[in-house]
Amino acid sequence: MGAGENARAIDIRNAFALGSAIADEGWIVLTGGRNRGVMDAVNKGAKASGGLTVGILPTKDRRTISGAVDVAIITDMGSARNYINVLTSDVIVACGAGGAGTASEIALALKSNKFVVLFNSSKESRALFKKIGGRLVLEADSVSKTVEVIRLLLAKMERVRRGQ
Amino acid sequence: MGAGENARAIDIRNAFALGSAIADEGWIVLTGGRNRGVMDAVNKGAKASGGLTVGILPTKDRRTISGAVDVAIITDMGSARNYINVLTSDVIVACGAGGAGTASEIALALKSNKFVVLFNSSKESRALFKKIGGRLVLEADSVSKTVEVIRLLLAKMERVRRGQ
Amino acid sequence: MGAGENARAIDIRNAFALGSAIADEGWIVLTGGRNRGVMDAVNKGAKASGGLTVGILPTKDRRTISGAVDVAIITDMGSARNYINVLTSDVIVACGAGGAGTASEIALALKSNKFVVLFNSSKESRALFKKIGGRLVLEADSVSKTVEVIRLLLAKMERVRRGQ
Amino acid sequence: MGAGENARAIDIRNAFALGSAIADEGWIVLTGGRNRGVMDAVNKGAKASGGLTVGILPTKDRRTISGAVDVAIITDMGSARNYINVLTSDVIVACGAGGAGTASEIALALKSNKFVVLFNSSKESRALFKKIGGRLVLEADSVSKTVEVIRLLLAKMERVRRGQ
Repeated sequence: MGAGENARAIDIRNAFALGSAIADEGWIVLTGGRNRGVMDAVNKGAKASGGLTVGILPTKDRRTISGAVDVAIITDMGSARNYINVLTSDVIVACGAGGAGTASEIALALKSNKFVVLFNSSKESRALFKKIGGRLVLEADSVSKTVEVIRLLLAKMERVRRGQ
Repeated sequence: MGAGENARAIDIRNAFALGSAIADEGWIVLTGGRNRGVMDAVNKGAKASGGLTVGILPTKDRRTISGAVDVAIITDMGSARNYINVLTSDVIVACGAGGAGTASEIALALKSNKFVVLFNSSKESRALFKKIGGRLVLEADSVSKTVEVIRLLLAKMERVRRGQ
Repeated sequence: MGAGENARAIDIRNAFALGSAIADEGWIVLTGGRNRGVMDAVNKGAKASGGLTVGILPTKDRRTISGAVDVAIITDMGSARNYINVLTSDVIVACGAGGAGTASEIALALKSNKFVVLFNSSKESRALFKKIGGRLVLEADSVSKTVEVIRLLLAKMERVRRGQ
Repeated sequence: MGAGENARAIDIRNAFALGSAIADEGWIVLTGGRNRGVMDAVNKGAKASGGLTVGILPTKDRRTISGAVDVAIITDMGSARNYINVLTSDVIVACGAGGAGTASEIALALKSNKFVVLFNSSKESRALFKKIGGRLVLEADSVSKTVEVIRLLLAKMERVRRGQ
């Protein structure tokens, strides 16, 4: 998750590298699906490494779909689709500080008891969401660190699933 | 908007007084509709002053509806109903710091370009949402101040609507 | 529920009379909320008798709201709002044959185990929905008969609620 | 789309064969995603031919997901997810007569101006939906005929997209 129209250049670069790294791990990239900012970049990165990409779109306008999305889910539900984004994901990564949309996804993820990795987030975002989410919120300051944290979380979730 | 199960006593008292004051103004109270915490208290306050109350419920379980809700809207959409809450409201008030649900509503409101009044919020919440929302975010530290801010915002929205 | 843009004159007249009769019973009218066809007419009828009207709108465009709706719920969820319409209603009335939207509401109501009254429906609609819904589907050919059927259904539901 | 718990043996067999044939064409199978009836069978058929399967689930309960779904989208929106099913699909196939859920999907598809193929539907369903949907509704009585109709529809949609 991350900024769309207002994404910074550094967030776009990180998103591309992260998408590529996620695909290298064999994981699926899921985003809000639009052809803008972090969403678009992480999908392009994943495709560059041959990954599978899923986009959950807010509107029926097919011109807004990222060209790097393999499976485009059309909701016509505006920002209510953010709830589907977080429920469908095993781990949520917020790439960059993001804006109101990203904050809503982090909050909805915590409400749904999902793990969130804040990758290069703002200090205000880290302060609020660590306070609200406690152990569900983790931080990372590089692509490799983000992937490492996801790997640990997936292993933890797998152990819980097996009842260990 | 505000905490459900984990609401503090002070937030419950403020919510009741706020509901009562909103009803005195002739405004409609809209909440998440459950019989818990801030939602329940603001509805009870509004009914104590003869107001109209609308609740947007997350599930089909009718036992969870606040007894002080006049019009109960059943969504069966979990936290996706938070998006309906903010779109349907003219002004959103977060009463107390709240948790992940409240944060998601503030963020969804700002994403939808709605005014948000933070009434006795945490400093972390104020810091993040002022940064994200700018002029859309206002603060209040009492019921009377909250009502005053809402009145100003409604007047402002009315002027915009009339094109003045 | 019923046709919007394509409503017949007879359906509009029946919807107005039905809205008025529902308000006379002290019941709340709930519709899709737009300023078109059956939705608009039933709300106008209810207001003519001093009733309360609730509209669940599919889009954020406030110009599409019926002027006779008291409580406008904004979903921005397109036809997914049809699911909210039926879950929120105690009894669903399809006024006239309607089109695809009305058929979707009847089907969603039956899926949710809700009673549906087909008031002046088409023979094709009656045939399919009686087959699918069985005892959940009732028929009426006048406003007074529709109100009578609703009254019986509400009494039946009240008995079930009380465990009698 | 088709019956879940109440699917007939013939519909299950047809769904499996259809899923297999769809995968052979290189198309993606999208269903409601549960491990029941037509949904489950069409996914199993698609996987038997090495296809990609997407399931849009109504609840958060992961035990209800078909084991043959590759990409499981979790909505927690009950039957409102039927709207996402039809918007996301290029062509909707109703396999067997189905019940209220299938009827709601056919109706929502027609409301959204989507093509629907009725494969071995009931005569009541054919009568109503042909009346409502006109040229949007096609019929088929075998797997090969269904695939042929889909192929023609996709070609037609492609010509429209290209403005020919």
